[in-house]
Amino acid sequence: MSFQSRRDLLKSAALIAAAGPLAGIALAQQQPELLRPPAATGAKADPWKGLKVGVASYTFHSLPLQACIDGIKQVDMHYVSIKDSHLKMDSTTDERKAVVQQFKDAKILPISCGVVAMKNEAAIAQAFDYARDIGVPVIVADPSPAMLATVEKYVKERGIKIAIHNHGPESKDFKSPADVWAAVEKLDPRMGLCIDVGHTKRAGMEPVDAIIKFKDRLYDVHMKDIIVDPSGRNTNVGTEVGRGILDIRGMLQALLDIGFTGHVGFEFEKAAKNPLPGLAESVGYTKGVMSTIRPSHLKT
Amino acid sequence: MSFQSRRDLLKSAALIAAAGPLAGIALAQQQPELLRPPAATGAKADPWKGLKVGVASYTFHSLPLQACIDGIKQVDMHYVSIKDSHLKMDSTTDERKAVVQQFKDAKILPISCGVVAMKNEAAIAQAFDYARDIGVPVIVADPSPAMLATVEKYVKERGIKIAIHNHGPESKDFKSPADVWAAVEKLDPRMGLCIDVGHTKRAGMEPVDAIIKFKDRLYDVHMKDIIVDPSGRNTNVGTEVGRGILDIRGMLQALLDIGFTGHVGFEFEKAAKNPLPGLAESVGYTKGVMSTIRPSHLKT
Repeated sequence: MSFQSRRDLLKSAALIAAAGPLAGIALAQQQPELLRPPAATGAKADPWKGLKVGVASYTFHSLPLQACIDGIKQVDMHYVSIKDSHLKMDSTTDERKAVVQQFKDAKILPISCGVVAMKNEAAIAQAFDYARDIGVPVIVADPSPAMLATVEKYVKERGIKIAIHNHGPESKDFKSPADVWAAVEKLDPRMGLCIDVGHTKRAGMEPVDAIIKFKDRLYDVHMKDIIVDPSGRNTNVGTEVGRGILDIRGMLQALLDIGFTGHVGFEFEKAAKNPLPGLAESVGYTKGVMSTIRPSHLKT
Repeated sequence: MSFQSRRDLLKSAALIAAAGPLAGIALAQQQPELLRPPAATGAKADPWKGLKVGVASYTFHSLPLQACIDGIKQVDMHYVSIKDSHLKMDSTTDERKAVVQQFKDAKILPISCGVVAMKNEAAIAQAFDYARDIGVPVIVADPSPAMLATVEKYVKERGIKIAIHNHGPESKDFKSPADVWAAVEKLDPRMGLCIDVGHTKRAGMEPVDAIIKFKDRLYDVHMKDIIVDPSGRNTNVGTEVGRGILDIRGMLQALLDIGFTGHVGFEFEKAAKNPLPGLAESVGYTKGVMSTIRPSHLKT
């Protein structure tokens, strides 16, 4: 039912055609907001309507770097937030540049990193060196509250943003985006949030509301879905996007409405040893919903 | 970032809860239109809004039966159209019943079979025995035009429907659904169509139009997406649903509008040796689009 050799020929042609938009990757590295993912087939405009949608590499944390890269390619994504599972925090500058090159060779642009714990100044300095070496404008972080002043000092010195990740009801310091906001609102404006939409819902806040309310400091998003347990309680059991309870359409609309320019990273945690089918379903579902949303201009 | 043991516990509970709706599988076997897929998590209503969406097992034609079953389970589908790659046409009744049982044990209901070539009466008789043994109400077929009268005789005798599959411009007899319609319209009303939406578009007919125009004889659908080649010509190169040119939303709306009760089977052909990620993305995309469509009553 297929014409394999013809298909391979066409596939090669499509790949060559798709290379064009990524030629600007060096420029995008300086100003990542300039990079737009290429259309998958030449047949359609950007399915993400300008949002920088990619993958949080934590999704592949049980698998080696190459499997992570192959998986991100498979789902036609072109951004990644690098977790230390694929590039250790204590890596050398050369090691960091080599990993970045592997991603770029696969037409995937590192756009943030994390989640990075920050318990002392050494860890903070290391994280900022790491972010500098991999060329990302944002570090997704889970700092100790006592270290926030030090983190802010590095933000001012290095010009790299911090997106503090909320981790749900089990977290001591940052359960919901409101906790992060309270901690950063009086600090440098480059101290902001990574809204994890699943943990946000579990902490009792609607992700759509959080995206809109905290838009001025929103620098990264972890995209996922969660299910309820049989008693009706929201749980930390992740699921394929679309099978759970989150308002996917509302979140996408909100991100478009606020003109979000940061990374929207899929983080699929249900099947660490074989995350690809679930990630693919999640990406497909989100793209399907996205296809029905009109891009809107900044409303506020 | 996850609580594995808790998750497993909840997953088991969810599986037990989900078993309920499938208890009626014996009844559904008699009247398949009664079967509704269970909600994936208990959190949502049927994401397919009453359509019987499943997988054409041709998707897994390069892989063994167990991989096919595991793949269909992975994407949370509960219907299958069985291709001879997973159950040979010359299998015995016992072999057929064993394979059906394997599907049912995985909560997957065989709902049609094919595509089956029908070049002589022996092949026709074999196909109708096969369909009887696996308990499906529809055979998706590619009969020689000269054999149509014989096929019709078996349809009348056995009470099993025939859905003739259109195969695009390369096909001699049935390029588009219009060709199938012309061949069957004067025959028994149980002689009808399987619209392959990709081949339909390539044959110059809009799948949405075909679904509506031929609704009275539409008994099966092959769901997919296709891309254009660099010169702008539609090709037989399949792609993940949503990455191509077909009007996915329009097709779903049309199927809901006509109150379609047959099988809508995903047929993903791009990566025969590893079809699961692409199938999962296709299922996700379609479900995402579906989430934005209101079910409608028969309009005509």
